[in-house]
Amino acid sequence: MVVLGIDPGTATTGYGVVKGDGHGPVSLVECGVIRTRAREPLANRLDEIYEGVTELLARHRPDALSVEDVFYAKNVRTTVVLGHARGVVLLAGKKAGIEIHEIPPAEIKKAVVGTGAATKEQVQFMLTQLLRLKSAPQPYDAADGVAAALACLMSMRLTTTPDIRSRARA
Amino acid sequence: MVVLGIDPGTATTGYGVVKGDGHGPVSLVECGVIRTRAREPLANRLDEIYEGVTELLARHRPDALSVEDVFYAKNVRTTVVLGHARGVVLLAGKKAGIEIHEIPPAEIKKAVVGTGAATKEQVQFMLTQLLRLKSAPQPYDAADGVAAALACLMSMRLTTTPDIRSRARA
Repeated sequence: MVVLGIDPGTATTGYGVVKGDGHGPVSLVECGVIRTRAREPLANRLDEIYEGVTELLARHRPDALSVEDVFYAKNVRTTVVLGHARGVVLLAGKKAGIEIHEIPPAEIKKAVVGTGAATKEQVQFMLTQLLRLKSAPQPYDAADGVAAALACLMSMRLTTTPDIRSRARA
Repeated sequence: MVVLGIDPGTATTGYGVVKGDGHGPVSLVECGVIRTRAREPLANRLDEIYEGVTELLARHRPDALSVEDVFYAKNVRTTVVLGHARGVVLLAGKKAGIEIHEIPPAEIKKAVVGTGAATKEQVQFMLTQLLRLKSAPQPYDAADGVAAALACLMSMRLTTTPDIRSRARA
């Protein structure tokens, strides 16, 4: 099972691709960021994000797309522009005919670290452990994409593997 | 000169197509709304908006796309979801290779009515007068799309027709 995780943003959209067979350890396939230039018109930047996500979907053919849910920034303008980026990421997933999961930031942290109030450093540490990496995925936005993918993969394993689900409930 | 105006929204996206030759009166070609169902997943609704706008662009081949700028609703959630819809509208314009104008609501009202603080009823009245219609475009969202198109067309005439520009400045 392969999952593409996305942390949307107009300036920097982080992504991570993780895979796991449903029982054994999970591993990182690729991670990185799609950067756009602030001086470009918004429509051009959205197109770069859309095309970047579309290319990742075509290249990795994941089983699911996991998109971090809206983070309500204190600055409303920031949050709204983020909505634009998130809109084209969801559209790219829809156009690829892929299963889409939208996961709130706190649930992603809870899945990866065990608590929804985890710090960025704690998330990075746990990603390094769970994916058996030498160092944390860089930059932060890429790590957030990896975390979104991992949280989705872990929830899919819980719902598709009966023995694991019953253990989780016990 | 033909302009497609869009008032984005996840539930209802209003649109209007207006045309004018740069000197004479302007006229309404078509107006309406793209409606999406609330129970549909967000990605599906965004796809319907994207495809709806793409179809309008292909059918009318306008010279410009005018999109109402973000309205900061009191409810942040509403504003953010609106950002998603606006993102796919801008993407549709970019993919069609068309000139895009983003106009704040107050500027649209000022262009159509003469004051940025105009009410919806005043906008509807002026649209009826300027476009020589028997009644105002219905529903409100369609009228907002028509107003966005008209404001853009009027500003393009000001910047492209020297004699009108000098009159406006006089």
